Amino acid sequence: MPDDGLVVGLDVGATKVWAALVAPDGRPVVRGSRTIHSNEGPDSVIASAEEAIRACLGGEHSNAEAIGVGVAGQVDPLTGAVAYAPNLAWRDVPLGKRLHDSFHVPVVVMNDVRAATVGEWRHGAGRGARDLLLVFVGTGVGGGLVAGGRLIEGASNASGEVGHSRLVAGGRPCHCPSRGCLEAYVGGWAIAARAREAIEADSHGGAALLRRAGSLDLVTAVHVGEAAHAGDPLSRLLVDETGVYLGTGVAGLVNAFNPARVVLGGGVIEGLPELIPVVAAAVRSNSQPPAAAAVTVDRTALGHDAIPVGAAEAARHALDRSSPDSWDPAPRAITPPRAFSGM
Amino acid sequence: MPDDGLVVGLDVGATKVWAALVAPDGRPVVRGSRTIHSNEGPDSVIASAEEAIRACLGGEHSNAEAIGVGVAGQVDPLTGAVAYAPNLAWRDVPLGKRLHDSFHVPVVVMNDVRAATVGEWRHGAGRGARDLLLVFVGTGVGGGLVAGGRLIEGASNASGEVGHSRLVAGGRPCHCPSRGCLEAYVGGWAIAARAREAIEADSHGGAALLRRAGSLDLVTAVHVGEAAHAGDPLSRLLVDETGVYLGTGVAGLVNAFNPARVVLGGGVIEGLPELIPVVAAAVRSNSQPPAAAAVTVDRTALGHDAIPVGAAEAARHALDRSSPDSWDPAPRAITPPRAFSGM
Repeated sequence: MPDDGLVVGLDVGATKVWAALVAPDGRPVVRGSRTIHSNEGPDSVIASAEEAIRACLGGEHSNAEAIGVGVAGQVDPLTGAVAYAPNLAWRDVPLGKRLHDSFHVPVVVMNDVRAATVGEWRHGAGRGARDLLLVFVGTGVGGGLVAGGRLIEGASNASGEVGHSRLVAGGRPCHCPSRGCLEAYVGGWAIAARAREAIEADSHGGAALLRRAGSLDLVTAVHVGEAAHAGDPLSRLLVDETGVYLGTGVAGLVNAFNPARVVLGGGVIEGLPELIPVVAAAVRSNSQPPAAAAVTVDRTALGHDAIPVGAAEAARHALDRSSPDSWDPAPRAITPPRAFSGM
Repeated sequence: MPDDGLVVGLDVGATKVWAALVAPDGRPVVRGSRTIHSNEGPDSVIASAEEAIRACLGGEHSNAEAIGVGVAGQVDPLTGAVAYAPNLAWRDVPLGKRLHDSFHVPVVVMNDVRAATVGEWRHGAGRGARDLLLVFVGTGVGGGLVAGGRLIEGASNASGEVGHSRLVAGGRPCHCPSRGCLEAYVGGWAIAARAREAIEADSHGGAALLRRAGSLDLVTAVHVGEAAHAGDPLSRLLVDETGVYLGTGVAGLVNAFNPARVVLGGGVIEGLPELIPVVAAAVRSNSQPPAAAAVTVDRTALGHDAIPVGAAEAARHALDRSSPDSWDPAPRAITPPRAFSGM
């Protein structure tokens, strides 16, 4: 049967590999996943990825034109190798070559947040925008930038580390070499740290949150969100502060980049969607008037599909270099990652 | 005589109009200027601008193919009108049309910092870079971004307000609607404000700085720079802090944007070039390792010529739309401002 234009999108995370067979309109027509453990090593993870892909291809759709992969790490776009993926404990894993050897189609490998950015931009909440800032708030904070209808990659393919834009110079220590990064206030780990400090300071009463977590060491951002939803005043305060921190930091990026749309996603936003209007208000009141007037703040639309859909889209685009004007709204809108198609 | 490819570049500032006849290689071959007063009204300022242009065209070079204008304000790129220029007290001044009516050549009007960005990128310290961040630190702080070989304009032509990226959320009040902007720490007005506060607090001795300025109200960033160069400990501390503030803020933008080069200019940098290595060190130590490894920090190369050279370059590029691949290093590298060529 005709499977024209189907491309596999693959999300290689720390606990799961998640594949989807994606139609040209961005719709995932089949999905497959396998649970993995980050300590099992690249061979085992790649085998699970191949199983997840085969699960997608095993039914009525047996062909894919290409494979696009999003992986939580630094990728060499020229070779499709994963240079460094701390959550998987990978260094220099030739993921693109391995998948090409198994499936004999072009493979594009990219950073997972970059892939999610492409997915939301082309088929999700960023659709139609030529100037877009995506901010994904999970345990860490990452993002992506689209300017003038083109994905911004940066001089060393490292752009989009918006979690390490500045929020409070000299402020809270970050997991990166600096202090006072946006992530050090609004990342999941940072929300948990702020919660533990607030409980210890006991200025607003931490008993409900502590009871929910079991012990101080075990407090996470999820507990904060659940307790806030249950009405705990301290947790609600922590959530409100998180929204203002995030919006204030995003406003600084809005002033620098002047996007038409800010799209927020990631686990913290999924768990606390009430952050969106708080962020929107803080963006409006902390941006220069011309930038504030031009921007809207929205939630991601694709959820867990964003990475496979975006990785598939990037792979499709890499194949399409011969027809650069086929994209809407902007021709050659992604500077295409290179398709790995054999040695 | 053949004047092939000469374009007028014009800098309309608050105290001076500054014209140059610019060769295709970016070299200003003739310059002319007129002093103006910001309260004299648009007609008088435009007349002075026309005189400055005629001074360039009066000698051996009598022809220009186009006029490019940089003006300290918000510009409508479609009409060449200056929507708002607070330092000139202009609103909706049809500058492009007026100059076209006088000189009968296409006119491109753009924001002055954007023009300086183009000048430094194409013919100055940013030459050859495809990913570039320019930060101009004067009384205010502005800048420009080039990504993937293209000038970033933003959704409403307002990108580059890097002075209003965040440094300290909730920190010092800015002249914009927000607090804690980079400009509120390192702009000329902010250096002066910090100096006055330090003198009042008297913790490091403010007598030398106060004596130099005459009175507390009269302390400016220029006094701070001069006193620092004369060895005043308080002023040296203020300068060092300024460098760390600037570098820490720039590092946040480097993380988001991953430029190959950061170019620093403007009056504060011209007066305090010793800030460059301080900023470079702070950028290195506060950026993510892949971004830090990819970036260098340099001083602007064109000085006062940056705005006319860049405006002329933008006008030349707008005329060149028919040959988009004529630019090195990147084809169609500037999304061209529209040339105003008559009603």
